[in-house]
Amino acid sequence: MAKLTQRSEDYNQWYIDIVTRAEMADYAPVKGCMVIRPWGYAIWERMQRALDDMFKATGHQNCYFPLLIPESFLKKEAEHVEGFAPECAVVTHGGGKKLEEPLVIRPTSETIIWAMYKKWIQSWRDLPLLYNQWANVVRWEMRTRLFLRTAEFLWQEGHTAHATQGEALEEAQRILGIYRTFAEEWMAMPVLVGSKSEGQKFPGAVTTYTLEALMQDGKALQAGTSHYLGQNFAKAFQVQFQNRDKQLEYVYATSWGVSTRLIGALVMSHSDDSGLVLPPRLAPLEVVIVPILKAGADNAAIEQAAYRLAEPLEDKVRIRVDKRDNVSPGWKFNEWELKGVPIRVELGPKDLQQGQAVVVRRDTGQKTPMPQESLPFEIPKMLEEIQALLFAKAKARLEAGCRSAASYDEFKKVVEEQGGFVFAPWCGSRECETRVSEETKATLRLIPDHAEDAPACMVCGKGPARRVPFAVSY
Amino acid sequence: MAKLTQRSEDYNQWYIDIVTRAEMADYAPVKGCMVIRPWGYAIWERMQRALDDMFKATGHQNCYFPLLIPESFLKKEAEHVEGFAPECAVVTHGGGKKLEEPLVIRPTSETIIWAMYKKWIQSWRDLPLLYNQWANVVRWEMRTRLFLRTAEFLWQEGHTAHATQGEALEEAQRILGIYRTFAEEWMAMPVLVGSKSEGQKFPGAVTTYTLEALMQDGKALQAGTSHYLGQNFAKAFQVQFQNRDKQLEYVYATSWGVSTRLIGALVMSHSDDSGLVLPPRLAPLEVVIVPILKAGADNAAIEQAAYRLAEPLEDKVRIRVDKRDNVSPGWKFNEWELKGVPIRVELGPKDLQQGQAVVVRRDTGQKTPMPQESLPFEIPKMLEEIQALLFAKAKARLEAGCRSAASYDEFKKVVEEQGGFVFAPWCGSRECETRVSEETKATLRLIPDHAEDAPACMVCGKGPARRVPFAVSY
Repeated sequence: MAKLTQRSEDYNQWYIDIVTRAEMADYAPVKGCMVIRPWGYAIWERMQRALDDMFKATGHQNCYFPLLIPESFLKKEAEHVEGFAPECAVVTHGGGKKLEEPLVIRPTSETIIWAMYKKWIQSWRDLPLLYNQWANVVRWEMRTRLFLRTAEFLWQEGHTAHATQGEALEEAQRILGIYRTFAEEWMAMPVLVGSKSEGQKFPGAVTTYTLEALMQDGKALQAGTSHYLGQNFAKAFQVQFQNRDKQLEYVYATSWGVSTRLIGALVMSHSDDSGLVLPPRLAPLEVVIVPILKAGADNAAIEQAAYRLAEPLEDKVRIRVDKRDNVSPGWKFNEWELKGVPIRVELGPKDLQQGQAVVVRRDTGQKTPMPQESLPFEIPKMLEEIQALLFAKAKARLEAGCRSAASYDEFKKVVEEQGGFVFAPWCGSRECETRVSEETKATLRLIPDHAEDAPACMVCGKGPARRVPFAVSY
Repeated sequence: MAKLTQRSEDYNQWYIDIVTRAEMADYAPVKGCMVIRPWGYAIWERMQRALDDMFKATGHQNCYFPLLIPESFLKKEAEHVEGFAPECAVVTHGGGKKLEEPLVIRPTSETIIWAMYKKWIQSWRDLPLLYNQWANVVRWEMRTRLFLRTAEFLWQEGHTAHATQGEALEEAQRILGIYRTFAEEWMAMPVLVGSKSEGQKFPGAVTTYTLEALMQDGKALQAGTSHYLGQNFAKAFQVQFQNRDKQLEYVYATSWGVSTRLIGALVMSHSDDSGLVLPPRLAPLEVVIVPILKAGADNAAIEQAAYRLAEPLEDKVRIRVDKRDNVSPGWKFNEWELKGVPIRVELGPKDLQQGQAVVVRRDTGQKTPMPQESLPFEIPKMLEEIQALLFAKAKARLEAGCRSAASYDEFKKVVEEQGGFVFAPWCGSRECETRVSEETKATLRLIPDHAEDAPACMVCGKGPARRVPFAVSY
């Protein structure tokens, strides 16, 4: 097997190598689109299950809204159309005829959903609506990269309707919390959280909350957003309800989403020069047992022993015996390493004699011979250790990657030479934010809830200012 | 609550009433599209889980292929383009520009998938590929009906690639078996199985296997299809592999799918004039406990008792206490009846005094007072009984609905007056099949594996012939 591109040679090519060679995704014939192959899709299914359980545990219900949206709907919210119209794929013909009104493929579903909410919401008794959908969306992108930015991607989009501002704000923050828990506890990926600036928020939102993660190359990656939409969409679609005081009032809204982009973030959080490294909780397979068959050995006995090892673990972990006979054990080791399976168990003739098996950790490379009878206890414990260690490592990397700069000159130097999140004083104005993004490769990533005060903005020199993180980002 | 349209008044309106009033689906602003509301979507999620488990247990993997297909791909298989091109929605503009080549929204994914399989398949070692995807597709339909026929629908589509004809045929039949098991054991819906005639098979297939169910109004409904595609798509996309003898050979294929149409079939299989009747295994909620609160009663004690009743059942069944205080118990009874929850448990002040609860079955309407302590044992048993009884009833209805006719005159009379599946002798020619569909409302539904021989075709009078089922269908 040819070697992967190493991170030190070409980080971007390393990423693409892993995604394609671990058979997570491939390029589709349509420019900017991708095919998610079984190994990538199985990771997405694990992500979906974990998030969906958390959504349902907090009272959300799934539903499904149409793919196609009348072009006129998009235009009802001024900021929204400005943000999304340039990215839309447009259907002009259907059933062999030109359509009376063009339809856009949803780039996001606020408009079609609020057109329906108008039918369903009359009274405070109809509220809240806590709906989510798992769907595909299309945003015409010029520069695409597998998982990170593709013309079509899969995501979940939550759309909730509330009787009060307070409830809607609480919902937007509750979801931010769910996303953070998911990033930390499932993806083993620590994040910064906060709100987007006016210039960076979702088109149509009052406030956009965001999670930002730090990749190994020092670039930031937006991992999810949760928007408080105020009454903007309710006003655009005339969705009013009778409140408890029998007054008509516009409905308050949120929307929120995470996408298959998270798979790209996962790859770049933990992987190494040998391939993918997966946190056990999201690994499609947590343990693979490779029987080492040799000419002249009692191969049947080895295979049987492999299945005997797997059996008591099958209820607790996702485990498989790799019994393929058309590839060598060494080839299998490489493949499962490339695919990021957290633990490999090797079982050869000598191991069999000694009643042991060799347990190999993907994250550290550590090889431990273990008595076979201890595997049912040691393996689940080791998987938990791996999950915790991956998070601890990523957290240390994030902390080391949070830097600070006092002046604009120092800021430019740190961004250029070190990367990471560079905390620097900013006055809050759109002008200074724009100047930074025009003059450096970094953008303002978020405004933390409790940002530190600073005497003066690094750009305009005016005060008061707050220390906020900028970064080069994906 | 206004009464539902009764089946005897207007069967079609009864169906639409149930779907909309049980909040399963609603009409979308785009003609022919629907919104699947939480109650309908939760049924779909139950269906997905059951089918997906069966697919995975037989070695299939999920993946995801793009929504958009270059128009030229569709044209590579002659029958395929003839069948699907007239139904396509066409994207002509993206990112503000006219596209060089129009893209169609997938009506089904054979073409894009076989374009990818060409990249992935070189040797017999790469086979079989047993892939499935859960996706949305668009087929421009003129006459639509919620769930049964919509321009966009959700489905799963399996696409497998094999080294031999025998394996591919076996796969197509294995899937037919899975669909049948699902229809019978989950949907409680008996089916006829067999293959489609030349005129009715999938565009591009060699053989289409089908499941046909019988609705309460005597019409047939195609509930799923599994296609043996031979080498048609491999030839269209030049997908060859080196076989074990080192010869190049075209790959053998299958494809198969079931869709949200099954939700429509489920509604029409079991429901009655009071609303939806759901088989327990697919009901989003199997049991609802309604505490009957009254002014002057010890309502807190009743509510507590309701939760105490639910608690030991929570691990075994999908159960909820309906504690809403803004609607009356009677309103709740109606709502859960309309939504088809299999068992309702009523708990009022008198019941509390007597240590009992009233258990009401949705399917029979039977009310049984039961000691509270027996519920944890009786409820799961009753749910199994309901599942079995619904199937038995539907099976009796299907058997009664299988009729026969010896002559074409008798056939027309039975189709017109009685409906159901009318088994009649047919010579196997396309001409006679077409004549039946032009001269009556019935079409040939399938050719059973072991169709009975008959001396002469009812249409042309020539022999040999076989008895095959015709029916008016959805």
